[in-house]
Amino acid sequence: MKIKLIMASASKELYEELYESRMELAQNDVEIVSVQPKQGFGSLESAYDEALTVPYIIQEATLAEKEGFDAVVLDCAADPGLRAIKEKLTIPVVGSGEASYLTAMTVSAKFSIIAVLEQSVRLMEENIQKYGFSSRLASVRSADVPVLDLKNHEAALEAICRTAKKAIEEDGAQSIVLGCTGMKKLCAEVEKELGVPVIEPLSCAVQMAAGLVRMQLKTSKAAYPEPIEKDWLSYINKSYRYDRR
Amino acid sequence: MKIKLIMASASKELYEELYESRMELAQNDVEIVSVQPKQGFGSLESAYDEALTVPYIIQEATLAEKEGFDAVVLDCAADPGLRAIKEKLTIPVVGSGEASYLTAMTVSAKFSIIAVLEQSVRLMEENIQKYGFSSRLASVRSADVPVLDLKNHEAALEAICRTAKKAIEEDGAQSIVLGCTGMKKLCAEVEKELGVPVIEPLSCAVQMAAGLVRMQLKTSKAAYPEPIEKDWLSYINKSYRYDRR
Amino acid sequence: MKIKLIMASASKELYEELYESRMELAQNDVEIVSVQPKQGFGSLESAYDEALTVPYIIQEATLAEKEGFDAVVLDCAADPGLRAIKEKLTIPVVGSGEASYLTAMTVSAKFSIIAVLEQSVRLMEENIQKYGFSSRLASVRSADVPVLDLKNHEAALEAICRTAKKAIEEDGAQSIVLGCTGMKKLCAEVEKELGVPVIEPLSCAVQMAAGLVRMQLKTSKAAYPEPIEKDWLSYINKSYRYDRR
Amino acid sequence: MKIKLIMASASKELYEELYESRMELAQNDVEIVSVQPKQGFGSLESAYDEALTVPYIIQEATLAEKEGFDAVVLDCAADPGLRAIKEKLTIPVVGSGEASYLTAMTVSAKFSIIAVLEQSVRLMEENIQKYGFSSRLASVRSADVPVLDLKNHEAALEAICRTAKKAIEEDGAQSIVLGCTGMKKLCAEVEKELGVPVIEPLSCAVQMAAGLVRMQLKTSKAAYPEPIEKDWLSYINKSYRYDRR
Amino acid sequence: MKIKLIMASASKELYEELYESRMELAQNDVEIVSVQPKQGFGSLESAYDEALTVPYIIQEATLAEKEGFDAVVLDCAADPGLRAIKEKLTIPVVGSGEASYLTAMTVSAKFSIIAVLEQSVRLMEENIQKYGFSSRLASVRSADVPVLDLKNHEAALEAICRTAKKAIEEDGAQSIVLGCTGMKKLCAEVEKELGVPVIEPLSCAVQMAAGLVRMQLKTSKAAYPEPIEKDWLSYINKSYRYDRR
Amino acid sequence: MKIKLIMASASKELYEELYESRMELAQNDVEIVSVQPKQGFGSLESAYDEALTVPYIIQEATLAEKEGFDAVVLDCAADPGLRAIKEKLTIPVVGSGEASYLTAMTVSAKFSIIAVLEQSVRLMEENIQKYGFSSRLASVRSADVPVLDLKNHEAALEAICRTAKKAIEEDGAQSIVLGCTGMKKLCAEVEKELGVPVIEPLSCAVQMAAGLVRMQLKTSKAAYPEPIEKDWLSYINKSYRYDRR
Repeated sequence: MKIKLIMASASKELYEELYESRMELAQNDVEIVSVQPKQGFGSLESAYDEALTVPYIIQEATLAEKEGFDAVVLDCAADPGLRAIKEKLTIPVVGSGEASYLTAMTVSAKFSIIAVLEQSVRLMEENIQKYGFSSRLASVRSADVPVLDLKNHEAALEAICRTAKKAIEEDGAQSIVLGCTGMKKLCAEVEKELGVPVIEPLSCAVQMAAGLVRMQLKTSKAAYPEPIEKDWLSYINKSYRYDRR
Repeated sequence: MKIKLIMASASKELYEELYESRMELAQNDVEIVSVQPKQGFGSLESAYDEALTVPYIIQEATLAEKEGFDAVVLDCAADPGLRAIKEKLTIPVVGSGEASYLTAMTVSAKFSIIAVLEQSVRLMEENIQKYGFSSRLASVRSADVPVLDLKNHEAALEAICRTAKKAIEEDGAQSIVLGCTGMKKLCAEVEKELGVPVIEPLSCAVQMAAGLVRMQLKTSKAAYPEPIEKDWLSYINKSYRYDRR
Repeated sequence: MKIKLIMASASKELYEELYESRMELAQNDVEIVSVQPKQGFGSLESAYDEALTVPYIIQEATLAEKEGFDAVVLDCAADPGLRAIKEKLTIPVVGSGEASYLTAMTVSAKFSIIAVLEQSVRLMEENIQKYGFSSRLASVRSADVPVLDLKNHEAALEAICRTAKKAIEEDGAQSIVLGCTGMKKLCAEVEKELGVPVIEPLSCAVQMAAGLVRMQLKTSKAAYPEPIEKDWLSYINKSYRYDRR
Repeated sequence: MKIKLIMASASKELYEELYESRMELAQNDVEIVSVQPKQGFGSLESAYDEALTVPYIIQEATLAEKEGFDAVVLDCAADPGLRAIKEKLTIPVVGSGEASYLTAMTVSAKFSIIAVLEQSVRLMEENIQKYGFSSRLASVRSADVPVLDLKNHEAALEAICRTAKKAIEEDGAQSIVLGCTGMKKLCAEVEKELGVPVIEPLSCAVQMAAGLVRMQLKTSKAAYPEPIEKDWLSYINKSYRYDRR
Repeated sequence: MKIKLIMASASKELYEELYESRMELAQNDVEIVSVQPKQGFGSLESAYDEALTVPYIIQEATLAEKEGFDAVVLDCAADPGLRAIKEKLTIPVVGSGEASYLTAMTVSAKFSIIAVLEQSVRLMEENIQKYGFSSRLASVRSADVPVLDLKNHEAALEAICRTAKKAIEEDGAQSIVLGCTGMKKLCAEVEKELGVPVIEPLSCAVQMAAGLVRMQLKTSKAAYPEPIEKDWLSYINKSYRYDRR
Repeated sequence: MKIKLIMASASKELYEELYESRMELAQNDVEIVSVQPKQGFGSLESAYDEALTVPYIIQEATLAEKEGFDAVVLDCAADPGLRAIKEKLTIPVVGSGEASYLTAMTVSAKFSIIAVLEQSVRLMEENIQKYGFSSRLASVRSADVPVLDLKNHEAALEAICRTAKKAIEEDGAQSIVLGCTGMKKLCAEVEKELGVPVIEPLSCAVQMAAGLVRMQLKTSKAAYPEPIEKDWLSYINKSYRYDRR
């Protein structure tokens, strides 16, 4: 089966850096293609970043179905555009955040999310509330490492371990979900340090998507009905605009 | 004070049609300016429609602050881009859906939302869950009237009354929230028919926004931190694209 | 429009002291009349205080309708008698506590209430649970300043700021609701100190009530049905009493 | 031990009628004294009725402690003044509604309350929400029998059975709580008809109160702190009243 | 009436040690018989311990009905096999944990459970979630005293008081539920130290069970339907086993 | 990798009948071994059935780890003994019910479970409450087909489709979870009939378990601590038994 991973970041450097880790997800019957939106920020760290990038993520997702992919995975823990894409496609669509929470609930009763920035904390708290998982969440804490600084391995490792320890000791977390899909390399090291499962969202999403394809399960159109087709209206180069009074 | 209403619809016809009802919201110390996004669909009826339109709504909202407005109101019951815009602006931002739920909870214990289409039902259920108001929601029901067909007054009135009656009798609704900001004219008639308060979202949002301005309350930046400025990367006309393997 | 504010306190001194701040709420189309119950305690700080005072608050509320008022506002953050008064009247009724929570949820995701006394903490926690807003509440904390000591401006300011800071840092509050309607003067100073919105309940209630009047929305009688009229039986001066066995 | 039952009704007729059923609750080590408030309505069927009666219920409860009672039971399924009385007394206080819900949750997973009037439905829904038992409630339904008409045994029985059957079949109720303490005689008959446990609130409250006394458990003053003593201010016969502007 | 208490521990020593405290529960019309499962561990401290012991607890419970008992009480705060036994019997069945939570909610708004071991913390958190009481739980904390070490009175007292104080001060507990039925002797001392009600689960269960018997209430078979009779299949001494591939 | 499936049924006939469907789950890197408990009922349809069978399921699970399996899957939608087995093992353990709910929440917002018997309805409602997924559950409905009658393909298909349609139309289900792992053959047919995803629990559990093994994720011992080893005490053939008084 062919799964298309769509990154939220439009940074070529980040793409190159993470490329090998994406390719390693191709196992058994799973082929992986990793793409980026044609436009976007280097990183997605707020609802604002998300809102501006989502149309380009949807563009790639819509293409995926035509290109013959079996499933789409959103390569970002904030699940940007997840509902819109589930509406638009008929093949399975899995968000990395979504899949990581489901996995955390299988291996523990309460989990914490370690976000990269204070800003994305609220974004993920809102997602957890929206998905109805609040009773299983211990906390969302920020490690205060901007996505693009994750390259500094030592500093990132230290910050994440320190934050996750607080989540375990003060909030009662029994497993840790990383709040960004760019931290796979850190995973094993953090887990060794903490002694509880450390969950990498993108891997969860690929396993979940592959499972759905193998079980021939598709997104429920009763839950996510296909958008009605309609014209796109544009006045960009025209002078028409109402702001009277 | 000056409040900028931003419609989700990009339809000029709808704009013209609703113009008078927007201007009537200018009372006392409140000046109203109503605008549309520079691009968009004629109506917003799904998460997909919302995702594609939101960047242009944000564009108008960002302008609002520079133009000297005191508050921004989203003129759409789906609250498109609400979190992103609250992050981006420092002036108060109120969504019509959000304001209508708060109002419904003041005048009743349980309310129902009458959505225009089956599709927007899910969208609003998700918003209610996200806002944490599930225990006060009786139901979301669809009247099955596409936004642009609301012009047919008689048919729309009949469909909404019939659906709202079910919400009252079968689901225990004690007040009715209209799930679209284009139905103000119907409001009084529906209320007369039903005998319970019928809530028009845009009016609620304008009252709420004006109240915030008068109380000099702004959006909490601890809740909605300002997005970090970063470069917008674009490869639209370049050949650079990774989809190897 | 004319709005009647009904204080919970029967203290003439407090009335005099707060009079100017009540009159400032008369803006635009809003006329304000502020009254006190004919009997009561100097302050309402427990369910016991509330229970004994409520009949006299209801008395003033019932009069309001006959006196031609357009709305009633309960000038107390504990919302004393709110349900009973919503049942009794046909004009809109807004509680200061109720309105402040709705406002806090517009400007932030999570709010804390700073109660004046440990005792009122439980009262407000119970209200939040009753209104179904628990998932949006960060905490209720007591500043340990009796209502009638709020006159000591410096001490009150210090106590409230210290308590609110804990709510922000330890409980994750993103906005602060003052748990008493007698602290308006402190509001701006506390907000300046804390950097998050500080919400004064009475102002919220007046804005909300005025909004309801402008939108011609009334309390749902499906939610708050009118009490059936019946005789009041009194044996005060009679010897009739059963406590046999 | 001596338990004081405080009725919410001030009707002498109802008192006489229910007297025997109260005295039957005196078993083993339990002595029962049943009293009425010195003023009140013939029945308590709304929050308004409750608010006006509560001061007189509190009066009897306060006396109870001085009279040497071991516990107080509120003889009304709406738990009028429960929090206030728990604050005021140091001996155990049990509400009939409260005790009946706890009992229903012991004998079943989901229960329904059969209220006497549509009006009390909301009152009880609000209590369930306040106590945090919503996930165990199947429904509150009204049998539409005013308290004082319960005397018509046949009609009351038929109405309650019909309503309870709907609760069982349509709402999934597995036990039935009677929403009024004046229906003990009906209990066994309704249970026989329905085949699920039918719970009489006052009996539950007496058992619960007696159990607390035997275990020497008192109300937590950390939960229900004693009200601070203060002066009662009265301007009834004076001309002092502020309603300027 | 005759109530059968079924311990979860199979330790003869513990039985002897606790015997007097069980017999003291026989008051008024209540006769007590205390038994142990025919097989089991010395203590029940995990779901694993529980799963292996439950069949032997069920055996004693099933016998109880034939032996003419009026009610069964599970003498263990983890409520081992509660649902299964409620299904199997027609006489009332009360779990000590279950009864203690209901009692705690009568005397306070928020309670904490002091478990004996870290391990049983999760067990009790899961029970609270299952019963739907999460909004009333302040916390479950472990005193880190294995059940069989409770004999060391001084050390146990100190550990429980220290842990309970944290629950009160840091988690907002207003009453304390002991998370083991073997600590009755400690109860009064802990309560004296803490100043909030300290609840002994077994006493609560006996009071609750006796109350149900007096009120002639049985477990709802709509909630806990009687298990369909079927053959027990055993291959213990046969060679039949499938694990091919 | 090697995954051990442990059936809850001890029926040899059912084992033979379902054998092929279990072996089909071996795909790619997944080897499947399917076993039954050495003792048990022919089917597990109540908490009572579950309680008696669980020790023998645990026995097989404990063996699994020694036999070198990589994961254990409980081949029963009621998740019998799930917590106990998660405590006991260090390899991943997945319940079929648990995995099916997580999968249903990926493909839809609200799901219904179609139980085979009225009795198992309560069992599954309790599991959903325990897992914290109530806000995503539309309903649990019984198709009234005993597990061992599932052989009658036509009748079972008809009953399940009829029940699932009610769940979709009346309860708002957007996907259907089969409440038994013996219905795989029906799955595709039911899905075709209904037009929404129909989820087979055992397949979900195998996919989930295989995913955990591939990601090297184990059960959190902070959530499910290993049981303390202790002696098993048995008095089966001895005369020692306490039931005095």
